[in-house]
Amino acid sequence: MREVAILGIGQTPVAEHWDKSIREIAGEAVFAALKDAKRDTASGLFVGNMMSGILSKQENLGALVADWVGLRGIEAIKVEAACGSGAAALRAALMAVNSGMMESAIVVGVEKMTETATAEATAALATAADADYEAAEGLSFVAINALVMRRYMYEHGWKHSDFAPFSINAHANAVNNPNARLREPITEQDYQKARMVADPINLLDASPMGDGAAAVYIAPADSLYPAAWYNGRPPVRIVGSGSATDTIAVHDRHEPTWLAASYESAKRAYKQAGLTPADIDFFEVHDAFSIMAALSLEGCGFAERGQGPRLGLDGDIYLNGRLPIATMGGLKARGHPVGATGVYQIVEAVLQLRGEAGINQINGAEIGMTQNIGGSGSSIITHILKAQKD
Amino acid sequence: MREVAILGIGQTPVAEHWDKSIREIAGEAVFAALKDAKRDTASGLFVGNMMSGILSKQENLGALVADWVGLRGIEAIKVEAACGSGAAALRAALMAVNSGMMESAIVVGVEKMTETATAEATAALATAADADYEAAEGLSFVAINALVMRRYMYEHGWKHSDFAPFSINAHANAVNNPNARLREPITEQDYQKARMVADPINLLDASPMGDGAAAVYIAPADSLYPAAWYNGRPPVRIVGSGSATDTIAVHDRHEPTWLAASYESAKRAYKQAGLTPADIDFFEVHDAFSIMAALSLEGCGFAERGQGPRLGLDGDIYLNGRLPIATMGGLKARGHPVGATGVYQIVEAVLQLRGEAGINQINGAEIGMTQNIGGSGSSIITHILKAQKD
Repeated sequence: MREVAILGIGQTPVAEHWDKSIREIAGEAVFAALKDAKRDTASGLFVGNMMSGILSKQENLGALVADWVGLRGIEAIKVEAACGSGAAALRAALMAVNSGMMESAIVVGVEKMTETATAEATAALATAADADYEAAEGLSFVAINALVMRRYMYEHGWKHSDFAPFSINAHANAVNNPNARLREPITEQDYQKARMVADPINLLDASPMGDGAAAVYIAPADSLYPAAWYNGRPPVRIVGSGSATDTIAVHDRHEPTWLAASYESAKRAYKQAGLTPADIDFFEVHDAFSIMAALSLEGCGFAERGQGPRLGLDGDIYLNGRLPIATMGGLKARGHPVGATGVYQIVEAVLQLRGEAGINQINGAEIGMTQNIGGSGSSIITHILKAQKD
Repeated sequence: MREVAILGIGQTPVAEHWDKSIREIAGEAVFAALKDAKRDTASGLFVGNMMSGILSKQENLGALVADWVGLRGIEAIKVEAACGSGAAALRAALMAVNSGMMESAIVVGVEKMTETATAEATAALATAADADYEAAEGLSFVAINALVMRRYMYEHGWKHSDFAPFSINAHANAVNNPNARLREPITEQDYQKARMVADPINLLDASPMGDGAAAVYIAPADSLYPAAWYNGRPPVRIVGSGSATDTIAVHDRHEPTWLAASYESAKRAYKQAGLTPADIDFFEVHDAFSIMAALSLEGCGFAERGQGPRLGLDGDIYLNGRLPIATMGGLKARGHPVGATGVYQIVEAVLQLRGEAGINQINGAEIGMTQNIGGSGSSIITHILKAQKD
């Protein structure tokens, strides 16, 4: 199995791109990644996307984007794993390059959510849940997460305000990210006074929808030395990758406040990388809702069971803390264009590992981890990235 | 790169399964494939599907099906490439097993199309075309194919009746396939008198919608000898696989009556297998419309450019001909549950190569080819399968 490196990254701002079709949004990120990688083609294209069929009346995104970016003829598919589609597409590309069936691949996550009515996007998001036994009962996606959060607070004795640091940290980090959707810092008071969405989840617990795309260019690491070095540094390598599933309906789980697929996918990534949670310098968390940030930290072994909020209250999660998370704003403030999110996480981790995260740069960051969550914890994909020594 | 074998196959009848949800339809095929493979689990699950988000309000099919079939926790994703989703899912699984990142995989193609109104399914099918420049003009999928067929007839001088053998052959072969949707033989007169759908495509040029699922179980061929032999025979191997794209809109192509992606994907599969068209004993063709059968035969090198219908008129395509096609009924008569079709083609090829095709068995079939077409030729995936010698 060949080790794979990330040669190029690209992203669009997360915003309301009403003037652009889904192919144009995806194209912007792909062009940027190709330019960054100093390549003009690739063996294959993997598109991570969840809702284009429903919201843009457009499937067949692989062929669509391949042609649009001038790569007509290359192999291309769409990969879907609900909100985990972006990282799932990267993992499929990783397997393709590892297998030797491809020499390089472009992965682009893209979603266009804001042009249609919010109710339509909410209905589309509900297709990540169990259509027959959750959505059919009128449970929206935020409502499912609210039930989990309420139960978690009851089981472990947390107050709503204990989750504030997740939101405060994400908003603070987004201020300096030009691609973030919400670039205003918030206070603890803002958090506590925010409008309720689905009790106990309020507006500052929930990530915003958005349109956007992020892309990466990957190739075998062994083929790159040293011509493909980036600004004098070797490219970032993918040293661990893991994916796992759980029941799609939360009520089917033995323990609704534990993400078994987070634990399993992280375990598989750690095993491949030969690393443990203590080795990770920063973590791009899937904070679609505050409760998901807490559960993901626990699943990955960064916090004891039921103690996720403790990392926020102790200050560990801030840029200067023990385990910085959401370093460019996370889903909460960078925004959550669903199928693109997993690739944004990778792009942001690469920025940190290249030392290009600007004001948000974590000193000495060498190993970063990302976890992308589809559904209410049903499809979870974890990656570990490492900066190569010069 | 490890060679991969198909250990098990399963399929449901193509029918109107109004009493079953999409997970139940997929599950039936997966259970059958597991039983046939004499396995009870796999490293991963790849679901080929196009329209479940629109027609069943259900995405996240990877996690959904994994849990439903009792494999909660295994890695699972959905792969989409329009009507080519089934074969695209197989190819993604093939890369996963080839890479060594998985030791085995289940591939299931599934589609549920008949429960909603036909107009809804027609609109969903149009998402395989260019939403901005084809569907927005009111072009349905059959209308696009009608334009291509009309142009092809004009360019190469064919009459409509010259395409009759494709339909006659498919219907004749479906009579003996218990899983086929249309099991009545048709005559040339039936073909010529059939109701017009979109001139020149009539009802007997077009494949029927349907609900259905087909599944295969794959694992490295080198790990199987000889314990996994099937009824005393080694399992069928996948010796060639290729995938390519073209413009999503037909009007963007330099030559609208030539499937460049058919040619490219077949070329890649032949190259991997070290074979030529002359080595192929039978061909599971993507006859969604008669014109697509003709164009696919040409793209794969079985007929000269513009001469696809000749193979039908000369009798080559029948079970006793030089190159039998649609040997269990093809899309035309077995039916075309879109995301499942590519896996049905593989299942049927395996039946032939195992000598289990019953009355439709092709004597001495050792090498079979399948080609699955997404969109109007925009996403095309080709596989070559070979029976192992005892």
